[in-house]
Amino acid sequence: MSKDNYIIHSAALKLKHEKGSEAEALFLEKTWDMLSVIPGVIDFRLTKIINDSSPYDFEIEMKFENQEIFDAYNKHPNHWDKENNKGFVPEVWMKEVDSFLEKDTVIIRK
Amino acid sequence: MSKDNYIIHSAALKLKHEKGSEAEALFLEKTWDMLSVIPGVIDFRLTKIINDSSPYDFEIEMKFENQEIFDAYNKHPNHWDKENNKGFVPEVWMKEVDSFLEKDTVIIRK
Repeated sequence: MSKDNYIIHSAALKLKHEKGSEAEALFLEKTWDMLSVIPGVIDFRLTKIINDSSPYDFEIEMKFENQEIFDAYNKHPNHWDKENNKGFVPEVWMKEVDSFLEKDTVIIRK
Repeated sequence: MSKDNYIIHSAALKLKHEKGSEAEALFLEKTWDMLSVIPGVIDFRLTKIINDSSPYDFEIEMKFENQEIFDAYNKHPNHWDKENNKGFVPEVWMKEVDSFLEKDTVIIRK
C-alpha cells in the first residue's frame, strides 16, 4: 500500500509559553518522546509555522496506514489513558496549549 | 539540499460550493492546472480534510526550496497578476473560497 492512501493527522497549536523559552523547548521534547514512539505512527514530524498570518506557532504531523491504527493511537496510554487521566493529552497538551486546530487529511491528487 | 529544509506552504479552505458539486470538482481542477505548473513548485498536492472538527474541507499543499522561489511563485501570473487583476487568486480563489487558513512551515524535527 502506497503512503498516498494514508491518513495524515496534524495539529497546529499555540503554546501558553513565551516564544523561544525553555518551557517551549521542553514541550516539543515531550511531544516527540511521548507520541513519536506510539506503534503505527509514521513520518512523525514537528514543524515551526513561519507566516505572520497564522494564529498558531507549531504543528505536529504524522501518518497512519488506516483508521484502525489511528484509533489505537488515540487510545494508547502515551497519548491518552482516560481511565487514569494520564498521558500526553491531560498531562502536557491540556496544560501547555493555548489554542489549536486539528486536521486529518487524505490525498486526493498529487 | 534535502527536502527537509524546504518551506511547506499550505492553505486549508472551505468553498462556497455545495459538497460533491460539479463546481467543487472544477475548483480543484483549476487549482491543479493553474498552480501546480508554476516553476519552483514541488510536491504539489490536494487533500480532503476528513475530521468533523475542522472548519475547512480541502487543503492545498506545496513545497519551495527557499523564500526567493516562494516569492517568485506568489508573483507568477498564474498565481496573481496584480497589475491586470488576473490569475488564480482574483479569478478563482476570491470568487469561490468562503474561508481559509494559510500556513507556511519548516521542519524542526523528523
